[in-house]
Amino acid sequence: MRQIIEKDFILIAYKDKRYFKEVSLGKSFHGKGGILQFSDLIGKHYGIKFGEYEIFEPTIEDIIMYGVKRETQVVYPKDGFFICFKLNITHCSRVLEVGTGSGALTLMISHAVGPEGQVVSFEKEDRHYKNAKKNIQRFARWENAELRHGDITDYSGDKFDAAFIDVKEPWLHLTKARSLMKGSGTLGIIVPTANQISEILKVLPDGFSDIEVLEIMLRKYKTVAERIRPEDRMVAHTGYLVFARKIANNEFTFSETETYL
Amino acid sequence: MRQIIEKDFILIAYKDKRYFKEVSLGKSFHGKGGILQFSDLIGKHYGIKFGEYEIFEPTIEDIIMYGVKRETQVVYPKDGFFICFKLNITHCSRVLEVGTGSGALTLMISHAVGPEGQVVSFEKEDRHYKNAKKNIQRFARWENAELRHGDITDYSGDKFDAAFIDVKEPWLHLTKARSLMKGSGTLGIIVPTANQISEILKVLPDGFSDIEVLEIMLRKYKTVAERIRPEDRMVAHTGYLVFARKIANNEFTFSETETYL
Amino acid sequence: MRQIIEKDFILIAYKDKRYFKEVSLGKSFHGKGGILQFSDLIGKHYGIKFGEYEIFEPTIEDIIMYGVKRETQVVYPKDGFFICFKLNITHCSRVLEVGTGSGALTLMISHAVGPEGQVVSFEKEDRHYKNAKKNIQRFARWENAELRHGDITDYSGDKFDAAFIDVKEPWLHLTKARSLMKGSGTLGIIVPTANQISEILKVLPDGFSDIEVLEIMLRKYKTVAERIRPEDRMVAHTGYLVFARKIANNEFTFSETETYL
Amino acid sequence: MRQIIEKDFILIAYKDKRYFKEVSLGKSFHGKGGILQFSDLIGKHYGIKFGEYEIFEPTIEDIIMYGVKRETQVVYPKDGFFICFKLNITHCSRVLEVGTGSGALTLMISHAVGPEGQVVSFEKEDRHYKNAKKNIQRFARWENAELRHGDITDYSGDKFDAAFIDVKEPWLHLTKARSLMKGSGTLGIIVPTANQISEILKVLPDGFSDIEVLEIMLRKYKTVAERIRPEDRMVAHTGYLVFARKIANNEFTFSETETYL
Repeated sequence: MRQIIEKDFILIAYKDKRYFKEVSLGKSFHGKGGILQFSDLIGKHYGIKFGEYEIFEPTIEDIIMYGVKRETQVVYPKDGFFICFKLNITHCSRVLEVGTGSGALTLMISHAVGPEGQVVSFEKEDRHYKNAKKNIQRFARWENAELRHGDITDYSGDKFDAAFIDVKEPWLHLTKARSLMKGSGTLGIIVPTANQISEILKVLPDGFSDIEVLEIMLRKYKTVAERIRPEDRMVAHTGYLVFARKIANNEFTFSETETYL
Repeated sequence: MRQIIEKDFILIAYKDKRYFKEVSLGKSFHGKGGILQFSDLIGKHYGIKFGEYEIFEPTIEDIIMYGVKRETQVVYPKDGFFICFKLNITHCSRVLEVGTGSGALTLMISHAVGPEGQVVSFEKEDRHYKNAKKNIQRFARWENAELRHGDITDYSGDKFDAAFIDVKEPWLHLTKARSLMKGSGTLGIIVPTANQISEILKVLPDGFSDIEVLEIMLRKYKTVAERIRPEDRMVAHTGYLVFARKIANNEFTFSETETYL
Repeated sequence: MRQIIEKDFILIAYKDKRYFKEVSLGKSFHGKGGILQFSDLIGKHYGIKFGEYEIFEPTIEDIIMYGVKRETQVVYPKDGFFICFKLNITHCSRVLEVGTGSGALTLMISHAVGPEGQVVSFEKEDRHYKNAKKNIQRFARWENAELRHGDITDYSGDKFDAAFIDVKEPWLHLTKARSLMKGSGTLGIIVPTANQISEILKVLPDGFSDIEVLEIMLRKYKTVAERIRPEDRMVAHTGYLVFARKIANNEFTFSETETYL
Repeated sequence: MRQIIEKDFILIAYKDKRYFKEVSLGKSFHGKGGILQFSDLIGKHYGIKFGEYEIFEPTIEDIIMYGVKRETQVVYPKDGFFICFKLNITHCSRVLEVGTGSGALTLMISHAVGPEGQVVSFEKEDRHYKNAKKNIQRFARWENAELRHGDITDYSGDKFDAAFIDVKEPWLHLTKARSLMKGSGTLGIIVPTANQISEILKVLPDGFSDIEVLEIMLRKYKTVAERIRPEDRMVAHTGYLVFARKIANNEFTFSETETYL
């Protein structure tokens, strides 16, 4: 049972509001529920009430939703959660990410691969690279995320178990990404528009198979026992997800050297 | 890059069909794409084509969808993926599960907590317990899942980071589950009906806060570049998900012993 | 081709904005696209551009969305359109409405039954009755809507082809509504919560059959050819719809007088 | 209160099954609920039980779902109901339809415009034209539907209040359809794919405005009071709907002849 210590990130809940804060000695939180001195929290356990405030240990979702500084559209938890599992990311997995953006998915992958796994993420845009770097330094629990400023063209490390692409023209990166993936490795792509799905599907079957396109919708409900009903409004769209697995381009014959692997 | 070895589980793809098989020497697979001798696969890499068949290394989703023997309604990947992340399950987490069912979610949790984490799962029904036991023995990658035949009433081990309940009357288990959870620990529940949400919400606020009710919908699309459109039909409902976090029942006062934790 | 005349209602479109106005001589519309003198519109045809403004003849949807003065939650077009057809409302139909609210559905029914049909609508709340009365006087194309201040208890006119109930406790009105309906007549109910569906279903099978419960979701897309994608947000919930048809309570026997009809 | 007469179409309900039949003297219906002699029904009222059968007067939805002989994909009620209202179709409207298909939407429009309205529908395919002709002769309540074998190129009748296009390449028909529409007239299009939306949006703004693209999803629920929950599966996609209104191509100037109208 962890106690709150200095420099911890905490989630403060006040009615429908959520505040993501760092516990800094000498500082305090001023909200509608009154003043909360961070020094009063030190040594207490998570899950306590302080006046009208509730103090929680942040989850990976809290970090993405309230902690990460966004300079780009981020991959939302509803999508990121699905992506990580769908790509079969687990303890020790090594994952390639093309397009770090603000690093939200990078953090979710880091969370999923654990301390012995790795995510190598490429970002071309200098400003986004620097912002993502900060987000990952602040929020990654383990040192398993390697951010690279540039694109994947020159990369030639070990092969990856899985790859994810989140850039405007993902079809331009398929060949290179594939060359860095293990056979049967899982590929994921997110794009906002149907036109992009179309472009991807034109080239994806060249070296990938078991292709799936889908979208995840999350509908929240009000939490009153006597009045069970959905919220009035919901997010209608974040992105379309495309998944596939690396397959040999040619049929296997026993005499061939398996050069594709 | 893993090579196929004896006793491996493999996923065979043939057009829209998927077959989940164990590589047994001397056995073969007979499908519409012809006969596949498992002995021919030994030593080959995953991600190859054999005639019209494609051979993939199974993902956690393949295991749930095609491997697990179902004697109950299982938690589907779209829900299970979301649940694991939402509960903040990661490397080393210790998770309580009430209602093992066929062990599908148990396997997903096992996948998420890694070799140093743990899931302790309770199942009252003898038949389901035995089936789940077999599923976990066959498919869990690490020995991190402890199945218990019975209910949680008598359990008194270390406290859990997270708990999940999948039984008909989850409200009967909230007090005990809560007593086994760390402060700020995450709770998840799945129920098929809105009536059950109502019953849960009547008692959940007693010791839990940050309550959310939601449903996840997954819509698949056809994969033809020139004709981007959703599939004709989709799953309309698997279950409603309820999430909450453990909170102290009383406001914290500095003199109090924090007995709730 | 109708020309714009004095007292017409018009829909003014300016980019994403829509303004519902009455053409009053001597008055003008002041918007971001400049000043529009209503007198300049007289004699013009609908569907013209005036500077950056576009002038349309209002549809029934425009009237509901932009014209009707709302003092209650109204039945939205996505639901109202479905309800009218589902109830089989057509030219000459006679329709009972319990709970006029602001008269939005009343107007849609009026639109559907035409000048020779009729909708008789009951509203208990004085304030809502008066507001609905004004809405119907302003916007109904034909004099086919009869508003009654009170409840249906004392009503005993001709039997209705269809009935719709939009009140908090619709189950209290089923017996009376049924007694005013023709055999095989269609019944519709709208309720915001699942708890209410449950209450309705407890009593509805007594005299009604062919029961359906459903919800209608409308997802809008952006209208850029190169970027086909849904809008970011959507309405997640307006109400659950319940439909049924009046059926004889007892099995028909040839000697019986058909008293139920 | 209508009595059942010879040649009536009736809907027979038996548990979850629905049978759409014509009352033919000397014939009978053989189902799991036993034999039903049609002659026994003559003179009875709708909404009665005959053993385990329930006899209903068919609604427009029953006609579309169970009556119409389909040789093409039909416009489903959930879409057709929305289309008719969205196009502002009401008593006396005159509506153009390009692509009759099996005549399902034609029947819904016929139902909406009433005996003094009109729908003129064009179908190029001889086989579909003949099938639609039969469907309309059997099921249209009023003689207000004019089917034409061919395309709209040569048509030059009075201008229409509304137009609907349901063909593979709707963009090819926009100019002609527009020339047959009144100013401010409403246009609707249904297409199955996002690629087609894209093609439409490339040309639609030339002469149409107030463009909307949307889809309607209908989710059905089980009807057990104690177990309120959606059905397991649902229709995920029928078509995308595009709506617009005719607008003058040039800004209105007072000296111009309004040639576009």
